[in-house]
Amino acid sequence: MKIDIIPVFGNITREQLNGKLAVVFDVLRATTTIVTAVANGCKEVIPVVTVEEALAYAENQANVILGGERESLLIPGFHLGNSPLEYTSERVKGRTVVITTTNGTHAIRRAAQGAAKVIIGSFLNAGGVAKEVLRTESDVVLVCAGTRGKLSLEDTVAAGMVCRELAKIARGKEAFLPGSDLVVAACRLAGFYKEDPLPALKDSLHGQKLAALGFAEDLAFCSRLNSTEVTPVFRDGRIIVETE
Amino acid sequence: MKIDIIPVFGNITREQLNGKLAVVFDVLRATTTIVTAVANGCKEVIPVVTVEEALAYAENQANVILGGERESLLIPGFHLGNSPLEYTSERVKGRTVVITTTNGTHAIRRAAQGAAKVIIGSFLNAGGVAKEVLRTESDVVLVCAGTRGKLSLEDTVAAGMVCRELAKIARGKEAFLPGSDLVVAACRLAGFYKEDPLPALKDSLHGQKLAALGFAEDLAFCSRLNSTEVTPVFRDGRIIVETE
Repeated sequence: MKIDIIPVFGNITREQLNGKLAVVFDVLRATTTIVTAVANGCKEVIPVVTVEEALAYAENQANVILGGERESLLIPGFHLGNSPLEYTSERVKGRTVVITTTNGTHAIRRAAQGAAKVIIGSFLNAGGVAKEVLRTESDVVLVCAGTRGKLSLEDTVAAGMVCRELAKIARGKEAFLPGSDLVVAACRLAGFYKEDPLPALKDSLHGQKLAALGFAEDLAFCSRLNSTEVTPVFRDGRIIVETE
Repeated sequence: MKIDIIPVFGNITREQLNGKLAVVFDVLRATTTIVTAVANGCKEVIPVVTVEEALAYAENQANVILGGERESLLIPGFHLGNSPLEYTSERVKGRTVVITTTNGTHAIRRAAQGAAKVIIGSFLNAGGVAKEVLRTESDVVLVCAGTRGKLSLEDTVAAGMVCRELAKIARGKEAFLPGSDLVVAACRLAGFYKEDPLPALKDSLHGQKLAALGFAEDLAFCSRLNSTEVTPVFRDGRIIVETE
């Protein structure tokens, strides 16, 4: 089986996704927030691309939480921003969360155009994702959202962490072949940041921007490696936990 | 001053180059070969894109060495392949070398479309390149050739080595601001491979392909960090050493 990493989702081709398991990473902060909302028992997360779509969804349905960001900040009229710290079980349990972010929700929808299955990745569930990857029979593509159309350190390191976790648990099983040098590079980077990815988040340009905006606590939260086993799946427009 | 790294030359925009110092890396093997030919006293290297251009050049001029590769192998009718080991001073001293490779010569010509100055980088002259970078007043862009349109480990690590060398010699001087997360990632990767980049070349997909083709010795040669101070400049179609 082959594993590959796409550094920036915008450049992905249908061929790179075709029939594969895709894992999407936008660890600062969309996918971390989604994993947190799902871990905290929300009914489903609906990732949408525009603010208008989100508002229209809420108009037609009761019990909806509107979340997301533009320029990293709360969208006027929305209940929650894009900080995972806001998505507590008190707030989200049993509810539908509609979320729109600058980058991450696009990446998820883009990955769904071709992939056989799309799961949501982050540092929080890296080990859980690796287990899910190991269960699949298909090739795997780790899709990083990136920052403003360029490779982002945090997503690349998170993809690398999944590769490291895979290497840990896959001993004796069939090895994954790296589909590109970025897989090797991401593993080395993950090895550098090892058990604590917080310094990677602090080193990253987007992490520095978030810290300057007052979201330093978010970086700490987003760096919590293997704090949950949940591996949310995006299917038919909704992100849920699939039960076997 | 800003420093940035472009992972794959094909995606570079004129704006990313405009007025900057560009350093081009295709360490396996075009830029290593060019640095070696220049260090061994050739009169000039003419990088051309097609085999036909190379042949036409040789027809009109005496004393020309034709070098390069297609699919990593010697081009029929050419004198030399793309191994730096072939470009000894006995072979190239005082002569014009016309070279065409699949990737590297394109990258050099592409970088010249906008950059104020283009220099040729490799592991061999990483320290010399860093000194040249430090002398410049402009922003700097490290242009990696990449492998088949994707980030390559060897070029990224070489760019990172230049950043490390810069950090070593620039102490107390104005720091370079990273223009993207890839700069941070490349520095971390260069830190991983430290004084000996040979494992990076062995880890890379293109390095493995070259080794399988019988060019394992080339990997060792291409990994010789700081073995020359020469920093060849590409100007008006020719690569030369500029004297002050």
